[in-house]
Amino acid sequence: MSQNIYDNQKFFDGYKKLRDNPFSANILEEKPALFSLAPDLKDKAVLDLGCGYGENCEEFLRLGAKRVAGVDISEKMLDIAKIENPGVEFINADMSDLSFVKDKYDVVFSSLAVHYVENFSLFVEQIFNILTPGGYFIFSQESPLTTAPIDGAKWVKDENGNVSHYRLTDYSRSGKRSTSWIVDGVVKYHRTFSDIINALCDAGFVIEKALEPIPTQETINRDPKWEKDLHKPNFLLIKAKKYYIHKENLDMF
Amino acid sequence: MSQNIYDNQKFFDGYKKLRDNPFSANILEEKPALFSLAPDLKDKAVLDLGCGYGENCEEFLRLGAKRVAGVDISEKMLDIAKIENPGVEFINADMSDLSFVKDKYDVVFSSLAVHYVENFSLFVEQIFNILTPGGYFIFSQESPLTTAPIDGAKWVKDENGNVSHYRLTDYSRSGKRSTSWIVDGVVKYHRTFSDIINALCDAGFVIEKALEPIPTQETINRDPKWEKDLHKPNFLLIKAKKYYIHKENLDMF
Repeated sequence: MSQNIYDNQKFFDGYKKLRDNPFSANILEEKPALFSLAPDLKDKAVLDLGCGYGENCEEFLRLGAKRVAGVDISEKMLDIAKIENPGVEFINADMSDLSFVKDKYDVVFSSLAVHYVENFSLFVEQIFNILTPGGYFIFSQESPLTTAPIDGAKWVKDENGNVSHYRLTDYSRSGKRSTSWIVDGVVKYHRTFSDIINALCDAGFVIEKALEPIPTQETINRDPKWEKDLHKPNFLLIKAKKYYIHKENLDMF
Repeated sequence: MSQNIYDNQKFFDGYKKLRDNPFSANILEEKPALFSLAPDLKDKAVLDLGCGYGENCEEFLRLGAKRVAGVDISEKMLDIAKIENPGVEFINADMSDLSFVKDKYDVVFSSLAVHYVENFSLFVEQIFNILTPGGYFIFSQESPLTTAPIDGAKWVKDENGNVSHYRLTDYSRSGKRSTSWIVDGVVKYHRTFSDIINALCDAGFVIEKALEPIPTQETINRDPKWEKDLHKPNFLLIKAKKYYIHKENLDMF
């Protein structure tokens, strides 16, 4: 069972303010990268895991999807999502156990939510089973370099107050992280790049592309503080495919 | 053309001393991880890129390979390799352009050498073409977290002289790095995790497994300084497969 931090009123209010900022890393880096990985969605059935306010769900419909369902653990967020996106089916559930999903989907998206899932191997196995053959799992998460430090992600500044470097610790210590983000005690799970790759491969997925987006030069020119993302990216995105033939049987051909 | 630093006498002597140390990261972390990724080598043709003294080549023969060839840019290293490993064919050439390789191989290994290759995309395309269908490309390299900082990999210590954290910078700035390792001016190329994954995928490879080895508890108990590798691993290893059917045609089945 994942933590339902988004139904905490203080977190909810703080998060809403953050998401309303048009110059957030989410808007400038993560969202363009996520949509750049999307296949043609025309007439596809799409599932969005950790959909929050459902704004990506709405976009999937606009891109031609014939059916879009969004799953989120937070009732508060889905209350808003339902009002704002009437064409989408919203399901209030914990995405860390997908056994409640009975339909098949052509594309499963998940934006900045898989770092809340404890058992990533089970999670990707369940997604593999939900997907139709030829289907895609496309997700974004906090960079493993961000989730690594047990005492939280920290930048070190030089004597002039400029960012000198990112303080990397505990990268190889996979597991639970309790961090302060808007409120104290937000529970996330750190996984290394190889943990993530191996879970996807073991579930039968073929990795097609990985992205670690950086700010555009325009963004850096507008506000030089974005340059620090060139030291340590904020996000990791992966596009993985379920082929018609299972990998195990590929050598038969 | 890659730099031929290994034929520099000072580098050569320093490197030899380093490799003779039974408690090096190469012996304790990289080598066991590399061999754990090896498929059954019985009756296989094996190519080792950046083979150095050829000790891995000899081991591939012991594991049943019917034919082993080793490629290295350093004549000095191959002079020793030829004496120590008479059953192996050694080729003195720059692995950054493999157009000289006319034979096909079932498995291509490369241990701690690909970070010297400037054009990784061309390199993995050439390896894909050298491999027989069903073949594997298995390589180790310095961790992208090690190659990232433009002014070199550095640990920061606390007031008691204990390692506090790894100083991560420039991760998203892929490209040339001139570092000091044994001698000054050793040229390497930094690539992000996603650069590496995408080059392999674009060449047609299916990634099967990734490893970022850590020291064993026994190693840490013998010398607690190894614990810092849990903050930042030394190596990245990847096992990639060339399937019988090219990925592009998989959807036809």
